Amino acid sequence: MNSYGKAFRITTFGESHGAGIGVIIDGCPAGLAIDTAFIQHELDRRKPGQSRITTQRREKDEFQLLSGVFEGVTQGTPIAMVIPNEDQRSHDYSHIAEQFRPSHADYTYQAKYGTRDYRGGGRSSARETAARVAAGAVAKLLLQQLGVSVQAYVSKVGTLALEKHYSEMDLAVAEENAVRCPDPATAQRMFDLIDQTRKHGDSIGGIVTCVVRGVPPGWGEPVFDKLHAELGKAMLGINAVKGFEYGSGFEGAAQYGSQHNDAFYTDEHGRVRTRTNYSGGVQGGISNGEDIYFNVAFKPVATIMQDQESVNRHGETVTVTGKGRHDPCVVPRAVPIVEAMAALVLADFYLRSKTARIES
Amino acid sequence: MNSYGKAFRITTFGESHGAGIGVIIDGCPAGLAIDTAFIQHELDRRKPGQSRITTQRREKDEFQLLSGVFEGVTQGTPIAMVIPNEDQRSHDYSHIAEQFRPSHADYTYQAKYGTRDYRGGGRSSARETAARVAAGAVAKLLLQQLGVSVQAYVSKVGTLALEKHYSEMDLAVAEENAVRCPDPATAQRMFDLIDQTRKHGDSIGGIVTCVVRGVPPGWGEPVFDKLHAELGKAMLGINAVKGFEYGSGFEGAAQYGSQHNDAFYTDEHGRVRTRTNYSGGVQGGISNGEDIYFNVAFKPVATIMQDQESVNRHGETVTVTGKGRHDPCVVPRAVPIVEAMAALVLADFYLRSKTARIES
Amino acid sequence: MNSYGKAFRITTFGESHGAGIGVIIDGCPAGLAIDTAFIQHELDRRKPGQSRITTQRREKDEFQLLSGVFEGVTQGTPIAMVIPNEDQRSHDYSHIAEQFRPSHADYTYQAKYGTRDYRGGGRSSARETAARVAAGAVAKLLLQQLGVSVQAYVSKVGTLALEKHYSEMDLAVAEENAVRCPDPATAQRMFDLIDQTRKHGDSIGGIVTCVVRGVPPGWGEPVFDKLHAELGKAMLGINAVKGFEYGSGFEGAAQYGSQHNDAFYTDEHGRVRTRTNYSGGVQGGISNGEDIYFNVAFKPVATIMQDQESVNRHGETVTVTGKGRHDPCVVPRAVPIVEAMAALVLADFYLRSKTARIES
Amino acid sequence: MNSYGKAFRITTFGESHGAGIGVIIDGCPAGLAIDTAFIQHELDRRKPGQSRITTQRREKDEFQLLSGVFEGVTQGTPIAMVIPNEDQRSHDYSHIAEQFRPSHADYTYQAKYGTRDYRGGGRSSARETAARVAAGAVAKLLLQQLGVSVQAYVSKVGTLALEKHYSEMDLAVAEENAVRCPDPATAQRMFDLIDQTRKHGDSIGGIVTCVVRGVPPGWGEPVFDKLHAELGKAMLGINAVKGFEYGSGFEGAAQYGSQHNDAFYTDEHGRVRTRTNYSGGVQGGISNGEDIYFNVAFKPVATIMQDQESVNRHGETVTVTGKGRHDPCVVPRAVPIVEAMAALVLADFYLRSKTARIES
Repeated sequence: MNSYGKAFRITTFGESHGAGIGVIIDGCPAGLAIDTAFIQHELDRRKPGQSRITTQRREKDEFQLLSGVFEGVTQGTPIAMVIPNEDQRSHDYSHIAEQFRPSHADYTYQAKYGTRDYRGGGRSSARETAARVAAGAVAKLLLQQLGVSVQAYVSKVGTLALEKHYSEMDLAVAEENAVRCPDPATAQRMFDLIDQTRKHGDSIGGIVTCVVRGVPPGWGEPVFDKLHAELGKAMLGINAVKGFEYGSGFEGAAQYGSQHNDAFYTDEHGRVRTRTNYSGGVQGGISNGEDIYFNVAFKPVATIMQDQESVNRHGETVTVTGKGRHDPCVVPRAVPIVEAMAALVLADFYLRSKTARIES
Repeated sequence: MNSYGKAFRITTFGESHGAGIGVIIDGCPAGLAIDTAFIQHELDRRKPGQSRITTQRREKDEFQLLSGVFEGVTQGTPIAMVIPNEDQRSHDYSHIAEQFRPSHADYTYQAKYGTRDYRGGGRSSARETAARVAAGAVAKLLLQQLGVSVQAYVSKVGTLALEKHYSEMDLAVAEENAVRCPDPATAQRMFDLIDQTRKHGDSIGGIVTCVVRGVPPGWGEPVFDKLHAELGKAMLGINAVKGFEYGSGFEGAAQYGSQHNDAFYTDEHGRVRTRTNYSGGVQGGISNGEDIYFNVAFKPVATIMQDQESVNRHGETVTVTGKGRHDPCVVPRAVPIVEAMAALVLADFYLRSKTARIES
Repeated sequence: MNSYGKAFRITTFGESHGAGIGVIIDGCPAGLAIDTAFIQHELDRRKPGQSRITTQRREKDEFQLLSGVFEGVTQGTPIAMVIPNEDQRSHDYSHIAEQFRPSHADYTYQAKYGTRDYRGGGRSSARETAARVAAGAVAKLLLQQLGVSVQAYVSKVGTLALEKHYSEMDLAVAEENAVRCPDPATAQRMFDLIDQTRKHGDSIGGIVTCVVRGVPPGWGEPVFDKLHAELGKAMLGINAVKGFEYGSGFEGAAQYGSQHNDAFYTDEHGRVRTRTNYSGGVQGGISNGEDIYFNVAFKPVATIMQDQESVNRHGETVTVTGKGRHDPCVVPRAVPIVEAMAALVLADFYLRSKTARIES
Repeated sequence: MNSYGKAFRITTFGESHGAGIGVIIDGCPAGLAIDTAFIQHELDRRKPGQSRITTQRREKDEFQLLSGVFEGVTQGTPIAMVIPNEDQRSHDYSHIAEQFRPSHADYTYQAKYGTRDYRGGGRSSARETAARVAAGAVAKLLLQQLGVSVQAYVSKVGTLALEKHYSEMDLAVAEENAVRCPDPATAQRMFDLIDQTRKHGDSIGGIVTCVVRGVPPGWGEPVFDKLHAELGKAMLGINAVKGFEYGSGFEGAAQYGSQHNDAFYTDEHGRVRTRTNYSGGVQGGISNGEDIYFNVAFKPVATIMQDQESVNRHGETVTVTGKGRHDPCVVPRAVPIVEAMAALVLADFYLRSKTARIES
């Protein structure tokens, strides 16, 4: 199904080359001021054509707000937003009507549904994520009121890793360069690597790191819907994601408990804190008040400007020829998408936390 | 909430030192023969006390089948199973009533609920996973009828990694040793490492790899409920899990598209296949008929037999003294849990796949 | 929340005087041919201004199909439809910004949300049901393929009841008159009664009867989600509905079991049938293959052209003066809404029935 | 599926003649004191054998609390309760293994699932409602803290109606007689009618009226999940229910708006009230602070001590002979079930109401 969230719930729709894409947010509390410029700003961060290292598809990605907001304030009713498609160059894609592009969703959609909208990947296009970004912007507005911030950045491109810990950098710097890496020198090297990859008609993978600050203790559900489990699902639901880790992550699996345990202490404000944060801000599936941080691994995008072996709908061998526009590296544009999905998870858990106990 | 799955849905209950733990399976199709010995066998694989490298808590983990099965066959009605707790040594845990053990869920439960059952970790105890294993066994029985197998094994303990690819080994060998590693020599080295860790009163992390064979093309939902996203959520919902990756995973993020794309071809049976399987059997969130494989990272368990700094409920500094029984390394017993959760995800997607298209 | 259904799931949005209203259908199987003219036809049956006994608000109610259909066929992806609002005469409603109209939702929305879009009732307007009718039309197209028909008609207006049983009439005749009563003579009397009520600036209640034919045995879930329980919820979710009964209904409560039980027999086609149908086609919450029929009671609409006592937001006594346009009797336009909701329930249960048992 | 509720969610299991029946409550807030004697008291109100006008099946209906409560207080974790079956006289029912009893669920279960537990009706037995009553008792404890009371009573048996309005009687009197009618004289006449029916080996239908007091304005969701729509679904999900109406109900459909509208005024406490309450305490699907009241119609139970025509699994004509124990009239025992389901609906909406608006 095409919905995410329980209390703060979104449902998205739309294909790459249909009339448009969009989203309904259901469950957003009444009384939230909606800053439409902020929503558009978030969409602009995701939109194509921002630099020469992103796809040159032309989309203004201007959203229309259809419902749920009256006099600038949410009404507790569903908030519908639509982003019309403009650059519907169907002829760019007609050659793939019969072919299955390697590592795309062409074959699996056909296998599952017996039909598919082959234009630009149809529903499997990353264009669908614009709807998530619009909804995530509303979630961010809700979280802002609670003092919660969500900031993501590119921490690796190919084998080129940013070596600094998030706490050593001003993450806002990430928005100042096309790669969205908060370390300018590394950003430049990443840019060059992506640009070189683009010139070869190839693509390259990368990692996005996300940091959430200000979540109070008590968000998250303890068993299946652990805070990090929902974050993981939300991230793995983004196109091209291959892995998720939070806190110490895969490295933590190589450690001893005596190293890895986070000692509690009481800080000068009387707040219970931990001296280290291998837990990544989540213990037993519930936030503990420390920073939540996690990594999201993106594969190289499947569209490349090279000839590839494949088959068509009849199982016959064909050569897929690279055409059209593509992102040589998805991670710069993935940054706002990661943030949006994280914000949606957190907004949902915030609302769910309100029924955890009897009011005293 | 304490439910998982949409069409094949489980709800678990129970605390470590209450009357027992259990599960209701709702949505299991009618007409499935239930092999109770198999369910018990799966529970035995998870139960404590299997060797000296697992916790010495004594639990028979014998389950009772309360409903949903008549004359050995499922009826389409809810299947309830209860596993009574036997070894309820509450006195072992009374010392932690007031303390927050580092990297346990004590603090976060207290913060969320304003109360907690401190005996043995209450609901946050890994004992809860027995209910998942019982339910997963039923899911496995359903999948067996469809020719789908789920096999997990330990691929890393601390920094000690199994170097072989899953396709090079007979995975059934994993059940022949206490570590559940399919390579006997590596298994022995892992055993020694864990045993040494145990002697130091410490704990150590590790990685479980899982392989699913026989899933036909077409399982999984394309947007938020991608097959791998649900697998990720299910794995991250297991206690102590810090990361999830499928197919090429985090390594895939370091590659170029020209390396990473899986070329399609038609095999001798006329089936569409891929020459490589970086996709891990899932493309666009939907199974493509290849093996599904993934890695799950477990942190070192938080219970260690060493003194640790912490605070109590009043925020006062205390020393937490290691007592009780614990698993020095969780991954051997995690193998059946990983399998169970994978089976539950797949059973759910199998049922959901039945409504994907109009019957012709 | 603003969603209905589990497998065939709709989510609606929109306010009476916002940009428009709409719906996303999620879960519609791929491969269904979409007859857009039929959807528009269903919307036309509901739209205002059809005769002098319905509201004179001018709305073309032309829908736009935004996604989910490619080359005339559903793709298994979400189907989004939007119906722009045209006749947004906000000035008609400005006088109620501060007042609570008796038996409207003004007061309760304000109490719940602390805010409300007062223009034309906002989200509480019956205009929202247009989205349901559009979605219901798609459900009807799915049901048509299965040989299931859904037909509703007006069986009572005020105290004026249609005395004939549904099986004695050609229900298609209902569409030939403005009241939607399949008995022309009664229809004329009902028309006169409604018209007279209109002239008095008053409104009047009524009953809609619905008949569903062709449902095979086995649809419906046995405990909470009984087929008739979902029908009941779906009907009670329509604006102005006060009661629901199926089969023998309230009259059945006055009977003896020896009268009321429906004897089984085997018909000439070898099909198990019942001699009577007090069960209304549902036994134990599951369809038994007989006609499903039920009654839905609608109150007189709250908008009347008379002065009424009320209070404003500050609790001060005010006189609410009847203004604007209204339906003197809601049941003629409710007929397609009842059908739409019934079709949505049945489409959902059809899909859910597919996982009831192991395929043999 | 076998779950009900979104935030306060129950899942039931169990068959009439299996090991037992039970329920998991998920989402009950932490910190609620659990009075187990009260839960047992509620179960006793429903249990068989209370008088000669109820079935003589012997069941103590003693429940076991398996989880979720520690030191007498809910922990925010799932509350599991099991009621073992004692009187499992399977031989009483063996004669129906092959037959379809008229107006029971035998045929439809067989049609849906291809199998059924025929012992005592299996899962379709009203015995399943004991689990609801246990869960409803917990919901009542939650509501009590909020000042909300739920009281049901028998208002009609066959054609014998209680003529008084609920506000004219002390509803607590209903518990003092076997029929559960708050008017002693009418209760006696009803008792005699039921007893006479029993002697004839017949059964008879009836109506239960339920009154909910103390619900504040703002509970209920405005579109599909209207407060009365969920109440309707919950009631129609009880075995043998044929109809539901709230407020003015079916009679309201015969009225004019000028009669039916409930005028608002401000009372001496500054609270907005209505002078009449045809709305039944719900407007636009949301509570308005007035009493919520509704009627639930029960058919005569299908089990009668008379010979009836039917067919067996092979479609052959058989005579079903009345045997076993039965309730000649279900409404006296239905009173606590109606209350339980109403309490579950309200507890759910209470929790859901907590996220309706931004906290100021």
